[in-house]
Amino acid sequence: MKKANKKLNSASVIVIGNEILSGRTQDINVLNIARWLNTLGVKISEVRIIPDNEKTIINTVNKVRKVFKYVFTTGGIGPTHDDITAKSISKAFNLKYCYHPKAYKILENYYEKGKFNIGRKKMAKMPKNASLIFNPSSAAPGFFVKNVFCLPGVPSILKSMLGGLKNKIAGGRKVISKTISLRTVESEISVPLEKVQNKYKTLEIGSYPFFKQGKLGVSLVIRSDNLKLIEKCKKEIMIFVKKKKIKIIINK
Amino acid sequence: MKKANKKLNSASVIVIGNEILSGRTQDINVLNIARWLNTLGVKISEVRIIPDNEKTIINTVNKVRKVFKYVFTTGGIGPTHDDITAKSISKAFNLKYCYHPKAYKILENYYEKGKFNIGRKKMAKMPKNASLIFNPSSAAPGFFVKNVFCLPGVPSILKSMLGGLKNKIAGGRKVISKTISLRTVESEISVPLEKVQNKYKTLEIGSYPFFKQGKLGVSLVIRSDNLKLIEKCKKEIMIFVKKKKIKIIINK
Repeated sequence: MKKANKKLNSASVIVIGNEILSGRTQDINVLNIARWLNTLGVKISEVRIIPDNEKTIINTVNKVRKVFKYVFTTGGIGPTHDDITAKSISKAFNLKYCYHPKAYKILENYYEKGKFNIGRKKMAKMPKNASLIFNPSSAAPGFFVKNVFCLPGVPSILKSMLGGLKNKIAGGRKVISKTISLRTVESEISVPLEKVQNKYKTLEIGSYPFFKQGKLGVSLVIRSDNLKLIEKCKKEIMIFVKKKKIKIIINK
Repeated sequence: MKKANKKLNSASVIVIGNEILSGRTQDINVLNIARWLNTLGVKISEVRIIPDNEKTIINTVNKVRKVFKYVFTTGGIGPTHDDITAKSISKAFNLKYCYHPKAYKILENYYEKGKFNIGRKKMAKMPKNASLIFNPSSAAPGFFVKNVFCLPGVPSILKSMLGGLKNKIAGGRKVISKTISLRTVESEISVPLEKVQNKYKTLEIGSYPFFKQGKLGVSLVIRSDNLKLIEKCKKEIMIFVKKKKIKIIINK
């Protein structure tokens, strides 16, 4: 790992799952991971959604883990034949795919006697010497190898596991986000807004049109780790908003 | 373009938008595009979610357009400073970024006299000689260059534009999907299910646990363009389901 070259406080999420690509299932894990990472000062720089295909998983993981500080995978660590993430990650790192003694014990204790069957045992198989990510919902742990963190696909279970990961993520300053929602359309404000963006190049100003209760509006979202600068920028936006007599719906 | 090497009936979606990566906005365009492509016999093989960054857009588009038959981008074709898709696609294809005469006329006619301002005019700028994708919702057209189709980020507008694209997509046989939902857990069926998958290697059998109204269940989804084979496979699944006395919730 060339740590020095990795983008500072950056993360990539790899969503592993045919069901997302086919449109069967709406992914919501990216949103949940993003919001959690925001609180740790880590930014998602890229997401890839890929199929349950060993070669694709290996290639994708090996590409992105060299570019970003943290990689999170979701999906594919359950007991069925289409759950191939643990095996693929083992191959990506050239590690043996075998029973993890601690994971095995956790699962053995969790299930009633005689119920710890082959499918359940499979969930204890992972890359040799992987570190565990504990699962307070349904016992079966996730795991991580170097900077690659493997989480399940079921959103409620994934969410419950993030808390235990907090200490493993060394983030930066928390990203702050401020929103101004206006009763206008984008094209009415694009010129002065661009001027403000050009003045505050380190701030990320997003403009998002919306349509709610039969009315059009635009949300301006300013993101940065520098609250003072955000407030300064907001003031400048307010100058042209007032000049154009645009109604302010939200300012927070 | 090396057409011959491109994966048959495959598509890639590139979601362009800081708001998705930051967790501000839940993407639903991937799901809508996937379901629409299913009806045309085209499969999404990969999705990438990337930031509003010119270099990243250019690099990503130029990578994936050589691999997949169709590429769809979403987002970044509006009137504000953060809408940089059209300019970036122009650079990716080494085409001039300029007013598209037809798009200009559409927008000029759409807006009242004196209301066709700089922001709105920007939406007529795109790669020289791009083909238009008509927008029945809000006039501003999308466009395509070779196999790269650029759509807006607002889901309702995007959806309304897909119909007009139908004739541009030469798909394959329609992908059929059959679902069996069972009152069981994955680990109870993983062994016989894997045997069935190994027997029907050309079918894609997905296993998806769910938790609804306080009860656990598993949905088995079989996907293929071969209905006969799907039906045969379903029968074999039913054999072990009955043998294990598992309750069938859905079979369609």
